Amino acid sequence: MTHRFAVRLAALKRAPPRTVAVRKSPLEISWQARRSLASVSNVNSPLAQKLQINGDRLWDDIHFTAKYSLPSPGGLTRLCATPEDKMARDWFRDQVKALGCQWYKVNATGSQFAFFEGEDNSIPPIAMGSHLDSVATGGKFDGPLGVIGALEVVRSMKEQNIKSKAPIVLINWTNEEGARFWPFLGSSIVYAGQSTVEEAQFSITHDGSGIKMGDELAKIGYVGDGPNTFQEFPISAHFEIHVEQYTDLEKAGKPVGWVTGWQGMSWYSINLKGEDGHANTYPMYGRRDAITGAAKIITELEKLAYEKNGFTTLTNIRSGPWGACNIQSDVRLVFCLMNRDNSLLEAMGTEIESRVKGIAALHGLELTMARDVHLPPGEFWPEAIECVKTACGDEGIGSITLTGHDSTMTTTLVPTAMVFARAKGGWSHTAKEWTSKEDCAKSALVLGRAVLNFDHYMQTKG
Amino acid sequence: MTHRFAVRLAALKRAPPRTVAVRKSPLEISWQARRSLASVSNVNSPLAQKLQINGDRLWDDIHFTAKYSLPSPGGLTRLCATPEDKMARDWFRDQVKALGCQWYKVNATGSQFAFFEGEDNSIPPIAMGSHLDSVATGGKFDGPLGVIGALEVVRSMKEQNIKSKAPIVLINWTNEEGARFWPFLGSSIVYAGQSTVEEAQFSITHDGSGIKMGDELAKIGYVGDGPNTFQEFPISAHFEIHVEQYTDLEKAGKPVGWVTGWQGMSWYSINLKGEDGHANTYPMYGRRDAITGAAKIITELEKLAYEKNGFTTLTNIRSGPWGACNIQSDVRLVFCLMNRDNSLLEAMGTEIESRVKGIAALHGLELTMARDVHLPPGEFWPEAIECVKTACGDEGIGSITLTGHDSTMTTTLVPTAMVFARAKGGWSHTAKEWTSKEDCAKSALVLGRAVLNFDHYMQTKG
Repeated sequence: MTHRFAVRLAALKRAPPRTVAVRKSPLEISWQARRSLASVSNVNSPLAQKLQINGDRLWDDIHFTAKYSLPSPGGLTRLCATPEDKMARDWFRDQVKALGCQWYKVNATGSQFAFFEGEDNSIPPIAMGSHLDSVATGGKFDGPLGVIGALEVVRSMKEQNIKSKAPIVLINWTNEEGARFWPFLGSSIVYAGQSTVEEAQFSITHDGSGIKMGDELAKIGYVGDGPNTFQEFPISAHFEIHVEQYTDLEKAGKPVGWVTGWQGMSWYSINLKGEDGHANTYPMYGRRDAITGAAKIITELEKLAYEKNGFTTLTNIRSGPWGACNIQSDVRLVFCLMNRDNSLLEAMGTEIESRVKGIAALHGLELTMARDVHLPPGEFWPEAIECVKTACGDEGIGSITLTGHDSTMTTTLVPTAMVFARAKGGWSHTAKEWTSKEDCAKSALVLGRAVLNFDHYMQTKG
Repeated sequence: MTHRFAVRLAALKRAPPRTVAVRKSPLEISWQARRSLASVSNVNSPLAQKLQINGDRLWDDIHFTAKYSLPSPGGLTRLCATPEDKMARDWFRDQVKALGCQWYKVNATGSQFAFFEGEDNSIPPIAMGSHLDSVATGGKFDGPLGVIGALEVVRSMKEQNIKSKAPIVLINWTNEEGARFWPFLGSSIVYAGQSTVEEAQFSITHDGSGIKMGDELAKIGYVGDGPNTFQEFPISAHFEIHVEQYTDLEKAGKPVGWVTGWQGMSWYSINLKGEDGHANTYPMYGRRDAITGAAKIITELEKLAYEKNGFTTLTNIRSGPWGACNIQSDVRLVFCLMNRDNSLLEAMGTEIESRVKGIAALHGLELTMARDVHLPPGEFWPEAIECVKTACGDEGIGSITLTGHDSTMTTTLVPTAMVFARAKGGWSHTAKEWTSKEDCAKSALVLGRAVLNFDHYMQTKG
């Protein structure tokens, strides 16, 4: 049989639900509120005050590297471990080497680390990290602004002879988006000790093809011997720029913001197994139609979001048998629940699990359901937030992020905070994503100043 | 990029809805009630009385040829124009040639014709036809029983020196199921003048890959110069065995039945185009979420079936962008509406069109909707039905078929009727499809006797 048809065959009828949970075990992220040990100055440190940013260079690089993408008019499609991802990674490697990093390493899940010396290299480095991968038909800023903005900070520090006491590490975290391989935060989650290298390498796609992240990273030459965990390679703090993906900054007329915390989220996968039958001749009553059950679940998801003042999104659906004239007997759904309030998030989960069971029972469907990922809402570290807030000055406001980031992983370990850049219309994961050149530059300046403020804070607290 | 990834890319984001209507024009099948011109004897003709069937051979061939299938435990997956389909076709060709057919031809849409002389070859032949293709994960009887049962009739006639006055033609119609290429009845519809060779060759799959039936038939060597239309190659009548796909016979305790007519059906395709956005951060209100709209449509379909005492089935769903963390902005649905009553069928269509428009408006979705195929309910020709009924004797009952067949195409032209074989539990389009050896044999005997009765009827009416 032809290759094309072989691929098709795989979709004809879903195999037993081996991909119900794409991971061997659910990811239940633990998180604890942190207390700062010392007060942080509300004035930028001397080095932070000195720092300036080359906004033109940052802007040019964001747009230059956007060519490392599948055709994606106005936006970016750079899925993890693809040839396009390799090109962006290679570019990043060349930049950090050209900047004279002391060492450059790739770890077993593909994350890139570039280490720049400080005055005292006995101090664990302050990290600036984000991701160069994107979703399908995504935008140019979600991820790249964080990595290239961090790169721009180091470039400017070098040019301006600004040397921090602590060393600095730039990180391009692998598979933040989870767009190709599930789950998301694919490497920072390992670094945070919430998953393992093996599990991350085993991450597979939602389409049932069985392609694994580890294999695909190896194909593009991005499985290395760099540090995988915090234990192997401790950092002092983690800072990240990200586009806001919401409209708080835009509404407030502010270019930047400090991110105090994140909305919680739960990701579920469901398999509904019904019974094959003829689409035209099988009586309505007594059918075990999996797509009708799935449709009711999707409809309930929308209701649930409004009932609990949260968000819900059905992000994947796969249905079989393939072709015409068959009752659909095998459906897989992936969806997420989001809430700023943990008790409401848990209530959403309890509620949808109950409704899903009821719908499955109504349609005589075998159900397998898993909460694959659960990230409770939380707050970043006060001392790190304060460093960003001070860097923002009166140009920023405080806000929360409505989704997960690599920073929501590092914050389980070390002081972490994020810088928001104003996003036009709050658009994200679309080619419409847009942050102006000026706002990009301001966010990079805030990032650099926040890092230097934290560097200063570490000295003052001793 | 790798081939595999290129295939994946195609699914990342749906292109403009070029596949809304897979055909250039909708198939609106016209049909008129027929009156018989002469009365048919209610006694089997002398030749019909003489005919016997080798039930063991028929049974063995049904199971022998079921190996021409993709792996499909207990059932059959023999999609049109695949290597498996070629093997079944080659087998059929070898059988009819071994039986000494006067000629064997393949037409431009791949249908196979085997012509067996009668006493008077100036009479257009009586056809026995059905299909050797199956749906994905289908059964062994839907289609093959019709073709192999017809073959068994000719074999038995040869062995028993039964020669009809009219010649006989055996036909394996291409793509009856429409499981791989849409629409169904892919070749008999051309024969009936309701579509063209070009349109049938242009039939494509629902998955957006753009693979065409004509190209795939050419690959397996099944595009020939045989007759494409009734005008090129007239027949006197068409008879077909089919498994019942319902439970009327089983409930009545009868092995066979005569089919008086068919349920009507309309097939629709819909594209819903929303807006890309981030699954976690985009506000619920104001979303243009295509999958939420699609789910409501599917839910309405179920309601509609009960409201109008009909059937509805969602048979295909395709959703993008591919991957994680995106609001689904592009969804394609294919569904069918069925009713025994034409006014109710039309009412179902009017109603669903209205509801779909309302749901699209509610979610701000761009909608394209097409009624791709419409087959009003109808009745077979009384004289042909009578020939089957007489052949059934007290072993059968009258019933209607709830779906379309090649016979629902030929009946637009010439006397046509169908023989039902009892189907266990009414199961069809599933590996559970089952008709006993005895019932298969009885249905083939009824087919042969009906053909010989019709042959006799043609002589008596002059």
